[in-house]
Amino acid sequence: MRGKLLYEGKAKQVFQSAENEQELVLSYKNDATAFNGKKKASFEGKGRYNNLISTHIFEYLQEQGISSHFIKPLSETEQLVKKTTIVPLEVVVRNVAAGSITRRLGIPEKTVFQPVLTELYYKDDSLDDPIINDAHALLLTDVNEEELAFIKQAALEVNQHLQTFFDRVGLQLVDFKLEFGRDQDGSILLSDEISPDTCRLWDKENGGKMDKDVFREDLGSLIDVYDAILNRLEAAK
Amino acid sequence: MRGKLLYEGKAKQVFQSAENEQELVLSYKNDATAFNGKKKASFEGKGRYNNLISTHIFEYLQEQGISSHFIKPLSETEQLVKKTTIVPLEVVVRNVAAGSITRRLGIPEKTVFQPVLTELYYKDDSLDDPIINDAHALLLTDVNEEELAFIKQAALEVNQHLQTFFDRVGLQLVDFKLEFGRDQDGSILLSDEISPDTCRLWDKENGGKMDKDVFREDLGSLIDVYDAILNRLEAAK
Ligand SMILES: Nc1ncnc2c1ncn2[C@@H]1O[C@H](COP(=O)(O)OP(=O)(O)O)[C@@H](O)[C@H]1O
Ligand SMILES: Nc1ncnc2c1ncn2[C@@H]1O[C@H](COP(=O)(O)OP(=O)(O)O)[C@@H](O)[C@H]1O
Ligand SMILES: [Mg+2]
Ligand SMILES: [Mg+2]
Repeated sequence: MRGKLLYEGKAKQVFQSAENEQELVLSYKNDATAFNGKKKASFEGKGRYNNLISTHIFEYLQEQGISSHFIKPLSETEQLVKKTTIVPLEVVVRNVAAGSITRRLGIPEKTVFQPVLTELYYKDDSLDDPIINDAHALLLTDVNEEELAFIKQAALEVNQHLQTFFDRVGLQLVDFKLEFGRDQDGSILLSDEISPDTCRLWDKENGGKMDKDVFREDLGSLIDVYDAILNRLEAAK
Repeated sequence: MRGKLLYEGKAKQVFQSAENEQELVLSYKNDATAFNGKKKASFEGKGRYNNLISTHIFEYLQEQGISSHFIKPLSETEQLVKKTTIVPLEVVVRNVAAGSITRRLGIPEKTVFQPVLTELYYKDDSLDDPIINDAHALLLTDVNEEELAFIKQAALEVNQHLQTFFDRVGLQLVDFKLEFGRDQDGSILLSDEISPDTCRLWDKENGGKMDKDVFREDLGSLIDVYDAILNRLEAAK
């Protein structure tokens, strides 16, 4: 199934699909990184959890009519996806204040954003993914105004669906990051991963952090937390 | 003419006007600060230059139909202005890449922005004036969407006029920062100062820096440069 390795990122390897030039095999790694790669570790089983959780999420989104690069899972750690040219934007949606925004803007943790806050970051490791505004996004990427509006609107719709999705399993969706790509037809398509690596999730019962913050802040066993999420999702299916 | 000192900033003192509750006396200081106050110095005569140059600029803008807080000069270092409640935004307009944007986004110095780039910063010294997007501005200030659109449009109009203004005296307007306030009627009004402290100006003949970068980068005598600008403006009158 796998063709040649095209790219290796911090969390995934990207292989050409051997069967279809327009498809890729994403292989989730066990590596965890935080603070733009300054903190690193490896957790046995993490790639499997992220692949399986991400699969649950993309399948749910597709049931809700949200199209994405996701085609199907291939193995415990691999998914088949549509090849896109990634737009170098990280689209962050925040329902509740946590993480960098509390420090950058002095907003107290747990502040509820009403309306929901959308932010754009320029995906460039050498620049530490700086926050940007819409005008910068139009300058630095090939998306036009209409496509940028589509991306922001799609991110808000994904937020609605993910809130429902996680609420069913007792998790509050605090914030998350999306990436979009351009497919062969030139259309913008939701891509990359959606997992506890890219979402902040708080337990609705006790407020406990159930996402990569467990690694960022050394709060306990990351694998135990990802295992709990997967178990809740399987039980709710 | 001066009533009590209401506020002292890095570059100006703000006095109540003794005659009119709705007016202020801005007194330009000789202090120069850079890098959010981390670099400091004092230059004899600087307050006078900034007051006189700022007066030239606000008078020109008013002739062009741009209303502002400016009422009239009171002395060599003081102006009378309309009292506003400053909106805590620094509105930056960039015609050409220079300064922080070259480092933050990896854009080469002298890149011409087409369209002109507008940026918002949250005016908060304790947070180091972080860059923000429109959604943050609506969250962090009391301006509404319509007022934010007005502010950005006004900044672009000021840019047009200032380009002409400086071009006449052989200076290229690279970028500048504006502040807006809310007057007693609740209207948004251009406020604060416009001077070589708040603009980047490059000599059209030889590209030489003729603004506060002379201080930031230790390029020579700040006062000689401000004196040259004032002389050019007086000669062009
Ligand atoms: N459908 C897709 N087509 C092409 N590239 C993709 C797709 N989905 C994700 N990618 C890219 O795969 C790369 C590997 O992912 P990851 O390890 O998370 O990288 P990074 O360290 O850049 O975040 C990233 O550049 C990501 O944007
Ligand atoms: N028309 C006005 N009404 C009220 N405050 C003003 C007006 N114009 C400027 N100011 C404020 O005067 C203060 C002093 O200016 P400055 O020394 O430049 O301060 P800072 O160090 O905050 O930049 C600033 O807070 C500025 O926003
Ligand atoms: Mg990634
Ligand atoms: Mg100031």
